[in-house]
Amino acid sequence: MMTADFIRIHDVIDPDAATYGARGVRLARMAALGLPVPRGLLLARSFCDKIARDGAAAHFATELDDILAGLGDEVLLSLRAAPEKGEWGGPEALLNIGITNERLPALIERVGEAGAYTLYFRLIEGYGAAVEGLDPDDFETLVADQVKYHAVKSEGDLPLEAHKTLVEEALALYADEAGDPFPQSQREQLIHAMDALVRSWNGVSARILRQSYGAPEDAGLALIVQRMALGVGQGVCGAGLAHMVDERSGAPGLSGRFLPQAQGYDALMGLRTPHLITAAARESARQSGLSLEELLPDAPRALEAHYATISHGLGDAYGVEFTVENGALWVLDAVLSPRSARATVRIATDLVRIGAITREQALLRVEPRALIENLHRQIDPSAPRDVCGHGLPASPGAATGRVTFSPEEAIQLDAQGEAAILVRIETSPEDIRGMHSASGVLTVRGGMTSHAAVIARGLGLPCVVGAGDLRLDQKARAIVTQDGRSFSEGAIITVDGTRGEVLAGAPDMIAPELDGAFELLMSWADQVREIGVRANADTPQDARVARGFAVDGIGLCRTEHMFFHEDRINTMREMILADTVGDRRSALDRLLPMQRDDFVELFSIMRGLPVTIRLLDPPLHEFLPHGRDEMHDLAEAMDVPVTTIIERAKSLSEFNPMLGKRGVRLGITMPEIYDMQARAIFEAAAIVNTRNLEQVEPEIMIPLVSAAREVDVVKARVDEIAAQVMAEREVRLTYRLGIMVETPRAALRARDLAEGSHFFSFGTNDLTQMTYGLSRDDAGRFMRDYVNQGVFAEDPFHSLDVEGVGELLLIAARRGRQINPDLMLGLCGEHGGDPNSIHFCKLAGFDYVSCSPYRAPIARLAAAQATLLSREHTDLPQDDGA
Amino acid sequence: MMTADFIRIHDVIDPDAATYGARGVRLARMAALGLPVPRGLLLARSFCDKIARDGAAAHFATELDDILAGLGDEVLLSLRAAPEKGEWGGPEALLNIGITNERLPALIERVGEAGAYTLYFRLIEGYGAAVEGLDPDDFETLVADQVKYHAVKSEGDLPLEAHKTLVEEALALYADEAGDPFPQSQREQLIHAMDALVRSWNGVSARILRQSYGAPEDAGLALIVQRMALGVGQGVCGAGLAHMVDERSGAPGLSGRFLPQAQGYDALMGLRTPHLITAAARESARQSGLSLEELLPDAPRALEAHYATISHGLGDAYGVEFTVENGALWVLDAVLSPRSARATVRIATDLVRIGAITREQALLRVEPRALIENLHRQIDPSAPRDVCGHGLPASPGAATGRVTFSPEEAIQLDAQGEAAILVRIETSPEDIRGMHSASGVLTVRGGMTSHAAVIARGLGLPCVVGAGDLRLDQKARAIVTQDGRSFSEGAIITVDGTRGEVLAGAPDMIAPELDGAFELLMSWADQVREIGVRANADTPQDARVARGFAVDGIGLCRTEHMFFHEDRINTMREMILADTVGDRRSALDRLLPMQRDDFVELFSIMRGLPVTIRLLDPPLHEFLPHGRDEMHDLAEAMDVPVTTIIERAKSLSEFNPMLGKRGVRLGITMPEIYDMQARAIFEAAAIVNTRNLEQVEPEIMIPLVSAAREVDVVKARVDEIAAQVMAEREVRLTYRLGIMVETPRAALRARDLAEGSHFFSFGTNDLTQMTYGLSRDDAGRFMRDYVNQGVFAEDPFHSLDVEGVGELLLIAARRGRQINPDLMLGLCGEHGGDPNSIHFCKLAGFDYVSCSPYRAPIARLAAAQATLLSREHTDLPQDDGA
Repeated sequence: MMTADFIRIHDVIDPDAATYGARGVRLARMAALGLPVPRGLLLARSFCDKIARDGAAAHFATELDDILAGLGDEVLLSLRAAPEKGEWGGPEALLNIGITNERLPALIERVGEAGAYTLYFRLIEGYGAAVEGLDPDDFETLVADQVKYHAVKSEGDLPLEAHKTLVEEALALYADEAGDPFPQSQREQLIHAMDALVRSWNGVSARILRQSYGAPEDAGLALIVQRMALGVGQGVCGAGLAHMVDERSGAPGLSGRFLPQAQGYDALMGLRTPHLITAAARESARQSGLSLEELLPDAPRALEAHYATISHGLGDAYGVEFTVENGALWVLDAVLSPRSARATVRIATDLVRIGAITREQALLRVEPRALIENLHRQIDPSAPRDVCGHGLPASPGAATGRVTFSPEEAIQLDAQGEAAILVRIETSPEDIRGMHSASGVLTVRGGMTSHAAVIARGLGLPCVVGAGDLRLDQKARAIVTQDGRSFSEGAIITVDGTRGEVLAGAPDMIAPELDGAFELLMSWADQVREIGVRANADTPQDARVARGFAVDGIGLCRTEHMFFHEDRINTMREMILADTVGDRRSALDRLLPMQRDDFVELFSIMRGLPVTIRLLDPPLHEFLPHGRDEMHDLAEAMDVPVTTIIERAKSLSEFNPMLGKRGVRLGITMPEIYDMQARAIFEAAAIVNTRNLEQVEPEIMIPLVSAAREVDVVKARVDEIAAQVMAEREVRLTYRLGIMVETPRAALRARDLAEGSHFFSFGTNDLTQMTYGLSRDDAGRFMRDYVNQGVFAEDPFHSLDVEGVGELLLIAARRGRQINPDLMLGLCGEHGGDPNSIHFCKLAGFDYVSCSPYRAPIARLAAAQATLLSREHTDLPQDDGA
Repeated sequence: MMTADFIRIHDVIDPDAATYGARGVRLARMAALGLPVPRGLLLARSFCDKIARDGAAAHFATELDDILAGLGDEVLLSLRAAPEKGEWGGPEALLNIGITNERLPALIERVGEAGAYTLYFRLIEGYGAAVEGLDPDDFETLVADQVKYHAVKSEGDLPLEAHKTLVEEALALYADEAGDPFPQSQREQLIHAMDALVRSWNGVSARILRQSYGAPEDAGLALIVQRMALGVGQGVCGAGLAHMVDERSGAPGLSGRFLPQAQGYDALMGLRTPHLITAAARESARQSGLSLEELLPDAPRALEAHYATISHGLGDAYGVEFTVENGALWVLDAVLSPRSARATVRIATDLVRIGAITREQALLRVEPRALIENLHRQIDPSAPRDVCGHGLPASPGAATGRVTFSPEEAIQLDAQGEAAILVRIETSPEDIRGMHSASGVLTVRGGMTSHAAVIARGLGLPCVVGAGDLRLDQKARAIVTQDGRSFSEGAIITVDGTRGEVLAGAPDMIAPELDGAFELLMSWADQVREIGVRANADTPQDARVARGFAVDGIGLCRTEHMFFHEDRINTMREMILADTVGDRRSALDRLLPMQRDDFVELFSIMRGLPVTIRLLDPPLHEFLPHGRDEMHDLAEAMDVPVTTIIERAKSLSEFNPMLGKRGVRLGITMPEIYDMQARAIFEAAAIVNTRNLEQVEPEIMIPLVSAAREVDVVKARVDEIAAQVMAEREVRLTYRLGIMVETPRAALRARDLAEGSHFFSFGTNDLTQMTYGLSRDDAGRFMRDYVNQGVFAEDPFHSLDVEGVGELLLIAARRGRQINPDLMLGLCGEHGGDPNSIHFCKLAGFDYVSCSPYRAPIARLAAAQATLLSREHTDLPQDDGA
């Protein structure tokens, strides 16, 4: 009869890890799947607790003896620890339990003299260490002495007599040190071994160690006793590990290693060079040792069959740990196949294909951020890295190219077909053309929302910013590292925007891969997700990328970027520096057709989908030239003294530009600007809608609102211009007008603001800055310290601060919809590409998130996961109304 | 029998202005007080509505005739408009109604021929204009023709026959233009006059005009009919206005004017030079015309008696509008005594003294901001102003002095006993010494929280900042105005920090006056108020001023200002530029005794009262030198190359300093700084408490908190240092640790933060900046436009934004006290000196407000008013928990 305390591996139904340990569960499942798992029994955690209390002998019931007897005559046993989770660690296994002087002749018959003596010696050594606390070094000294005495290279070369001598010496050493002779009964060995493993598990250092791996204080242990598959013997014998998927790509492919005449550890400890699994692999590696396939031709097929069974039964890709005993293949364990971030996608879709998991499971199986690896060129993880500078990972992917210090050079190099890395202190609007031509960007200053970072993300260009440990030696035209290395113009460097590192030279790269698996997973995500994913796209080029990533529209078109083009920046500057409203209007009249053409192109690309256009937002001084030379050029173009330009620029400069005269404040104080933009939008919509069946519905967004009257004022003018354009062009246009909620006050006053608005789009970059009183660009300096010290649980610019900023979002959403139940809610900060933040938006009932085009796939997957997870739990931070 | 439609002036009980108009109410009250008010009747608003509908004739009932008959035989009548509020305006009065050809002889008998004809002429002219819409110019042409014909200087010199002729001509003109002869019945004249006044009231332009003065759309009119006190006649006759309090000081003192042989208008229109009231006044003015006192010796005493009666009965200081008819003095109206802001205090306390009003009424009678006039030297309101520049009123009061462009010169001038006005583009910490020596400060840039503004307010120094229409010509060392005037070094200018103006030259000034009335009012305020008033005081000097204004403690001591002293700024800079923690500690060790000494002095001054000390808040780059020269000096002092200083300063500079590495972020990343400050505080407290019976209880405040863990980290270290100091000095110290709530997130997370805090002090400057996403310094440029256009109802930096920022305060207060019911709540932004904001704090249950020392009296009065007003209504903005 069985008790809950122990059970035969092959008798278990629905095992759980808390009772039998993770490995116990795996073994039981594999046994149930019909895999050749050596017979044995699982000792439950409850049983181990009793052993801890009373010793194993007190609980070694007759049933236990019966089961062990049922494993066969003179079998050797293994005893393994099986904690609830594998990563908690645990004491080492004890193998070959049951060798005694009496049983030795039978063993010799089975595995040969050398093998039998070796196994006996290892048992005495291992048992002595585990049970009696003997020093393994003392045993190893015996071996070393023999090696020396016989003048051979290693233990493997010792003559048979030496092995015999070693066993004798080991038995003597044991008896001497332990005070008792080595136990000559399998039962006795097993009982003491059980006691030893349980004792070790409960030791102080083991406790501390496993708690550091996340184990709870009362983590318990289960044990596994199994018949040994020996791996040592007369026929084909050995131990190995086979994987059936490629670690980098996730594609099917058998690989692994096999060590003839070896047991578990030896194969894994790597004392000897392992052989390969397939003949083909051996050939390509030009190894002398025969592959498993050559030794045992059926083995690869058997392993693949086992892999399929395991993956199906356990619902993931597992490698197989196996032992071959006289040509028979035994499965010792299954270990999760290691995989690169990129491989997770392929593996997940393949598992669905073979019916091992559902589509929903596959969607949950892939970490959305891992898609970055699919989307961008990356440095090969196995390539050596000569890191020479550190900064912020401003835009993912890696690029190699020649150091250039000016946009002009970047353009030149690009024209010559050479990759350029544009290196600047900071970038400014004048650099945009150069950035288009560069393969990567590196700045010494700036934060995650600096000009370089924002533009690079938009372009999908690898970018590292704020690399403060690099110095730009302008005179020598070189980058100098902290340890004095210098990279002159033309030197080859690599920027790793995924990690925020600068590397010397050109490490191996792996190309982005948007293969079938990626597309398949994305299509499933789109079927599941309930929250829209739009892109932040400022230019037709961005829009094309966005459309390529199958977004649901544009959630944020920052019109200011349109003004940075070479052919219009000077007109923009004339507008800004205009002395009279008349002059300003005249400059705006020249900007109108340019902006209208941009919108025509943008709307044509996005037709059929919504496009949210943010009216001009940044403080005007951002458009003015920064360098002395450019100021001179502008002065010449405008025919004014350069001092006028300098003075005007100075008078426009601000103490805290983030909190300055920008957003709707421009719209109120210089209404001509928004008038022009509204007209450009409506005229473009009229043109595009006349041409196409699929209509565009522009959504006009007012930035940086803090009071309802601001919206009223702008809305009145926009509505009037819409009416004018409709009358002039004899068309009907539908459009929506909404606000960007990015000040805490806008969130609090959501009721007032919802009245005149079709939508709220939360600008969580600014909202986070204002809620924390923390500029993202300036926070870079200490954010890492803050997060490391646990002062902030996470960088609130990476993952939405649910407790603070999140409460403002919830307040605004609830108050807004109280007044206007149809209010559309979106999020268009950088958090729009962050999975946790997307999950929050889903729970908060948002209609969409918007992120940079290259983040859209991540957002689509995260949105799908949010839907799947919200079916399980819906715990939003509760606002108790207090 | 009387109806509600009209009532005798002397019969009214408890009149109300909505029914009888403000003047009707005053007349009825004065009649009831026994004053010699001419008899007459009040026509209610309801009656005037009927007149408007049907014409006066339809409602001229017999009772009305009876009342009019009761006023006496052949009396002349006046008809006056009486709107609900005097400031709404209304049609002109019609006087002398009832003169007809038939009655003329009797009138001649009463007032003489010239007088009678003049009155008749004026009646025809006035009536013609009001009733028939005739052009008064046509009548004036008749007069001018006679003046010319008789070759005299003015109408008054015309011979009798001319007056006769004028009446004949006027009657003919009237008949000609109106188409009917001038009506020869008092009743008919009165009825048409009533119609005319009501019609005029309901005219479009009158409506628009009064609505611009704040009248509601349906503002109605009442009318007053009174027996004329003629002012023209055989004995002492005339009209006048007497005031019994001095307009500037509010002290008792009879003044006014009297015009013999005149009626209401003439006296007020100022066509003739009026005589004075008292003989003494005539003497000092060397006027030829006899004073009223000389004409009618009892009149001054009578007027004073009437004044006392009126002030008592009407509860305020009123001047008396009077007419003397044959030596009899009639009171026509009472007009509120005009008064400077400063005089309101004296008048209010005097009214209490005579029992006219209660102390509570007196407290409510004085606009708290008016106290500024008492506290600071001001430009005489009657002095001519040669304004040459405009800026922000950064610190109230006015000062005249010589233009100086450097702190050194200011110090030098001051040493020579000359007043200096320090003129700078902006000030920086290096200017502080110069500011101490200057009489006033003027900056071309900067906002209300700029360095200059903050320091000047602390010093009580008149200051104008951001005077963008002035240009500093550094080469010529001169200020140049927009119209090209130039003020070189040494030129005399005046800064008016109350108005934000710069004046050429030295206008007359009036000195500050903290007289008995001021002190009395303050003492009443302190008895009434329930909310504490503390001062923001950074230095011992500030603390002395604050103690002088009887504050309840220091609510904000900004420790950074202590570091700007000449003798320690370099040590501070060494600390900032230190390369290692060791170097930093060594500089801090040298700062410790200096800071401790400051606290010893501060605590000694404030002993017995709480002192809230804010740990270091500003970003460190604020302490670094700005000018090239000073950088060189520092480099020399520190023995490092100047490039090191420049580079280090550059690396510390921030994009948005307001949102940068400041406040508790310094405390977390460089804990040595707060350690030093905590030690200085505790050691100073130990020293002071050992010396004195009255103990000081320091309150340590952590700035710019946004997460609870920040508080935990700082609190742990502060508590540890307190324990160390207590052990070292063998004393017991009590102290409180709290936070400055100035980020929206701190308000939202108040529950977490309240756990470890004794108090919350709301820093509403920063909180407003962050809630609006608006930097106060940068908002200056457009705030005026915004407020004028009504985009913001008020400048939220002047008066707390109750709807947005206020909600955050309420959320924080409620959540904080949920967790910690004893949590002390204060406000220490500039709003602490703003009456509306103080009212809000009272309603929100705050314990105190803290403001700059010179605002403390304003805050004390406002706090008293808040208590008095909150007894009446307690409408806080409701947070519906949504």
